[in-house]
Amino acid sequence: MRRKRIYMDHNATTPLHPEVKKVMEKTMSVFGNPSSLHAFGRSARRLVEEARKNVASFIGAEADEIIFTGSGSEANNTVLSILTCSSRECSLKRGNRSDVITSQIEHPCILETSKCLEERGVNVHFLAADCLGKVNIEELKGTISEKTGIVSIMMANNEIGTIQGIREIADIAHHYGALCHTDAVQAVGKIPVDVNELKVDFLTLSGHKIYGPKGIGALYVRKGTPFCPLIRGGHQEMGRRAGTENTLGIVGLGKAVQMRAKEMGKEEKRLRKFKEFLKKEIEEKIPDVRFNGHPSESLASTLNVSFDGAEGETILLYLDLKGIAVSTGSACASGSLDPSHVLLATGMPAERAHGSIRISLGRENSMEEIEYTAEVLPQVIKKIRQMSTAYAKEK
Amino acid sequence: MRRKRIYMDHNATTPLHPEVKKVMEKTMSVFGNPSSLHAFGRSARRLVEEARKNVASFIGAEADEIIFTGSGSEANNTVLSILTCSSRECSLKRGNRSDVITSQIEHPCILETSKCLEERGVNVHFLAADCLGKVNIEELKGTISEKTGIVSIMMANNEIGTIQGIREIADIAHHYGALCHTDAVQAVGKIPVDVNELKVDFLTLSGHKIYGPKGIGALYVRKGTPFCPLIRGGHQEMGRRAGTENTLGIVGLGKAVQMRAKEMGKEEKRLRKFKEFLKKEIEEKIPDVRFNGHPSESLASTLNVSFDGAEGETILLYLDLKGIAVSTGSACASGSLDPSHVLLATGMPAERAHGSIRISLGRENSMEEIEYTAEVLPQVIKKIRQMSTAYAKEK
Repeated sequence: MRRKRIYMDHNATTPLHPEVKKVMEKTMSVFGNPSSLHAFGRSARRLVEEARKNVASFIGAEADEIIFTGSGSEANNTVLSILTCSSRECSLKRGNRSDVITSQIEHPCILETSKCLEERGVNVHFLAADCLGKVNIEELKGTISEKTGIVSIMMANNEIGTIQGIREIADIAHHYGALCHTDAVQAVGKIPVDVNELKVDFLTLSGHKIYGPKGIGALYVRKGTPFCPLIRGGHQEMGRRAGTENTLGIVGLGKAVQMRAKEMGKEEKRLRKFKEFLKKEIEEKIPDVRFNGHPSESLASTLNVSFDGAEGETILLYLDLKGIAVSTGSACASGSLDPSHVLLATGMPAERAHGSIRISLGRENSMEEIEYTAEVLPQVIKKIRQMSTAYAKEK
Repeated sequence: MRRKRIYMDHNATTPLHPEVKKVMEKTMSVFGNPSSLHAFGRSARRLVEEARKNVASFIGAEADEIIFTGSGSEANNTVLSILTCSSRECSLKRGNRSDVITSQIEHPCILETSKCLEERGVNVHFLAADCLGKVNIEELKGTISEKTGIVSIMMANNEIGTIQGIREIADIAHHYGALCHTDAVQAVGKIPVDVNELKVDFLTLSGHKIYGPKGIGALYVRKGTPFCPLIRGGHQEMGRRAGTENTLGIVGLGKAVQMRAKEMGKEEKRLRKFKEFLKKEIEEKIPDVRFNGHPSESLASTLNVSFDGAEGETILLYLDLKGIAVSTGSACASGSLDPSHVLLATGMPAERAHGSIRISLGRENSMEEIEYTAEVLPQVIKKIRQMSTAYAKEK
């Protein structure tokens, strides 16, 4: 095994950027409660508001349109919970707009919350995706109505990397007077994201997917959009999310987007080359493989591939023994024996979905690591297939 | 002004314990997603589970009874949101137990969530408190019924420090088949807290009140207690709180409780002496003062005092100019012009409540700082009273 382990699971989470780490180490001594009026509080407040400006400007928003949350999941839950808002003044409620349209390939936090809304009587429609992971726009047009409150479609898929046409979806939503949310956790920091170009009303992002800390996310809420807090209490985040501000996490997120703004363009080009190289190597060296997701409209760093006659989790464990970390899909679904809901939604048979792994590259990966992976993966697949009686028999 | 600022607002938040800081600095390089199956994920998982054991053992719980949350506010919101659970299997729902009993002196996150539940048709009763801040137990006995789902009373008040008899409250709740929750954010780490002695079903604690990081809290949920997640999605925290685990925050919290276990007993004795000294000095040097909260059943470190003819926020700002940080009450209510809801609930007239400050001591405070404060405070009050025409006229 190589001495240094290779991390290729950046869609699950990323290491802290050295600059983020540096600023967080410094911030550890700033401890005042940002809501306190004294000097200790004011110092912390300044850092929080500076980070808010950074996050806002990175996605073309205004600072007061950014709410810091404890995670992307919390931000996504918050958006959907607006549908159950108890306030009589809520314009969604007044307009009797309680329907939700989302897709079958969303992150579990959107899917589970949507199912919970259904139990509470909300009408939820889950759009299908095509074999490349593109959400069915015609189905959206046929389903949306004057009763639709929120259309929530993720910008880039966490498992297969397919990028949706969010602007078109937002235009359709707005044509019917509905609000548009995009879970952009996997998109922000990898492809250009501008809330005014996308025309979304809500957008979710997360710190730990972009070399920032875990435990911090942000929700963009366009000015004037109906809103209802998920976590109530203090007046923090302008009354939209209670709880003492996580200064350290917020500062880390602020630095992370700054670094992404600097590095993203060049970096994504480099990763695209790595991905294409790896794809070519796999195609040449391993028979019976299929690449999942859209060939061009997808994240530069995400490669999802299915191997006949090999189980994803087994591949993962064998690669781990060789010092290479990949995943079988969402870390949020790890340990589940079900095949990926995303791959199933693209029409893939369960058996093939079971044989899939996700390689997601990042800023510390080197060409040497890619070459090592291209060398090891064929050996691992060969070994696993030899153990698979079903695959051996077929051949 | 002194060269080093004096921090006496520990009920708002605390600085990181040096040992917590050290372990967090070390943990910054452990970045794997604790839900990932590979080596990076497993390293993070180990740290998370070790911290969970620490937190559990500190309050006499089992590790799998601890759910990590993004804050104490989130934990409190989670408990109350169980009342609106949509699951048909929920035993609270099956038993038609939807009423809530709480008190008028709770933290805003309990009060606001309770008010939100009221808007959704839940029957909420807010118990009164006496002039020392003790919740009215007779009123609880007269109000509780077979329809009560949850009784939620905070263990130690954040503004006046009064400690409630949670065990008695839990016994009453259980006698009627209701669940008992205590917001112990201000109690944990300051007084002994054992969930089995208290017999509570839910207990909330927070990292940043006990020299741990902000952005991390925990909810104790007794085994077998009905539960419904507030944040849905991934299977994290055994399906009870979705979102990638905040490894850094969790590790920090785990270390913070360990340090509290070591230092708490001795430390609280020291702070009790400081508080009594300060109280005596204030009594002797400043006329027209009243101390708020219970004289004995209260936190050793919390001193809440009202000064006739001086406005709390003005006192805070003048002390800040002298390098001393105190507060007028909850940081979560800072910036609000309303007098403290806690002081009003104890029957204090609004004018006197307006003239109150909270001094909350902590582990870095020295006797020299206490003496300096005892010297400066009378000067500040005198100056403010001289500017107050109403106070001057009265005298």
